[in-house]
Amino acid sequence: MNELRTVAVAGLGLMGGSLARDLTRAGIRVLGMDGDVGAVAGARSAGAIADRFEANGAGLENVDVFVLAVPVQSALELLRSLAPHLADVSLVTDVGGTKASIVATAEAIGLGDQFVGSHPFTGDHRSGWSASRAGLFHDTSVYLCPASGVSAETIAQAVELWSAVGATTEVMDPAEHDRRMAWTSHLPQAAATAIARVLDAAGFKPRDLGPGGRDTTRLAASSPELWTEVALDNTPAMLEALGALEMDIAELRRALGQADAQHIRAIFEAGRAWAAS
Amino acid sequence: MNELRTVAVAGLGLMGGSLARDLTRAGIRVLGMDGDVGAVAGARSAGAIADRFEANGAGLENVDVFVLAVPVQSALELLRSLAPHLADVSLVTDVGGTKASIVATAEAIGLGDQFVGSHPFTGDHRSGWSASRAGLFHDTSVYLCPASGVSAETIAQAVELWSAVGATTEVMDPAEHDRRMAWTSHLPQAAATAIARVLDAAGFKPRDLGPGGRDTTRLAASSPELWTEVALDNTPAMLEALGALEMDIAELRRALGQADAQHIRAIFEAGRAWAAS
Repeated sequence: MNELRTVAVAGLGLMGGSLARDLTRAGIRVLGMDGDVGAVAGARSAGAIADRFEANGAGLENVDVFVLAVPVQSALELLRSLAPHLADVSLVTDVGGTKASIVATAEAIGLGDQFVGSHPFTGDHRSGWSASRAGLFHDTSVYLCPASGVSAETIAQAVELWSAVGATTEVMDPAEHDRRMAWTSHLPQAAATAIARVLDAAGFKPRDLGPGGRDTTRLAASSPELWTEVALDNTPAMLEALGALEMDIAELRRALGQADAQHIRAIFEAGRAWAAS
Repeated sequence: MNELRTVAVAGLGLMGGSLARDLTRAGIRVLGMDGDVGAVAGARSAGAIADRFEANGAGLENVDVFVLAVPVQSALELLRSLAPHLADVSLVTDVGGTKASIVATAEAIGLGDQFVGSHPFTGDHRSGWSASRAGLFHDTSVYLCPASGVSAETIAQAVELWSAVGATTEVMDPAEHDRRMAWTSHLPQAAATAIARVLDAAGFKPRDLGPGGRDTTRLAASSPELWTEVALDNTPAMLEALGALEMDIAELRRALGQADAQHIRAIFEAGRAWAAS
């Protein structure tokens, strides 16, 4: 069994900060790093990290697990620059919303027997250390996407890492993961952003919405940095999902234009049937 | 001051049932009617109504306020058929999500000095008596759309009715109300339904979504009967809103197709700026 004594977390935002809090609570020694010195200071004073490490790799000696918790483009860069310092780390993982590119990068730079990509299927429209909190991963599903050379023991270590913060895990192929996310995660995000933008153009504010409209647009507040990177990292699948959504809205628009009550009702009924499925 | 001793509520679903519960709790005598005998029996045994009245108008003697709480097409029909029995009622109102057609109908059939349309800006994706509950209108905004001949005293009675269940009121022109709702209420509903339908077609279930996706699609579970009627009653404004949403999604799709990071980021930033506005 691989050790799980010391975990280094790069990025102490919503995901990394919350992970640091709960790993520390589980009795694991956590080292932290963040470009924002305030996040590092906050994590230290909250007792979420025992110590810091440096972007140049100093302080990464004797680390068992290394976790990338920065947006995916930054994660790819950090993985490349820190690779020489990760030789003795048994598990390298991340928390990003897309998995194909980071698994491929890990394999390309020689981390193919250490890298198991992780995607905790949780989050918040808020971001940064100030949004982090204990318990974020409790009862959350985490998708695990192992690189090609990873041993069962290393996968078991990833399972153990997420179990330590109360999450359950499911192993999935990276390409299948990304296709699934384009529909179940990236599409709702894009739709919430689009509704927000057209409401803005029509002169309406969030306070003009009722509870249903507020729920529908809640994701519009999500981090633009993170979502720009996700969108660029999962473009073909996202294009497919967005195109399907446009066509579906156009179908309702046509039915309305024809005052076709039967068709309109069938559309709303199909939505309700799905919601009950 | 007009009396507010006896209120008759036609339709004991989510809105009518909840209103009956809270009016009774406020010490007002409530009479109820519903096509579903189970709803009437449920309201009686819950103590939400003191007695029933009939669809032919029997039992409506000595009623101060009459409330239509059925979908808008049914409300228009019921208003026409019951008009002869409403001569002594000082206030006739409703709870529908669109206001122009019902105010116009009330004026056309001689209720122009008694009708003040109401739209409580609350709700639930669930429907029917079983979804009704005490407190639904607490702290809710209610839009009031008076017919042309309504006196200040009758508007004051509508304000008093909604105050009795904890709601605040705002008087608004019916056409302005409907345009506003097309954007702030009907558009989010249509978008949630469209996302649900494309997820269904792509083979994904509600359980495949994370918390954000679940919020974005929550409205898909709403009543198809109610929404078909709303859509048919507010078609021109809804067509405009749906067309704008399609164009906005197409803009993100084009930016993605060109891998235009700056444009993609500007789109997500605009969504977040709106959410913070």
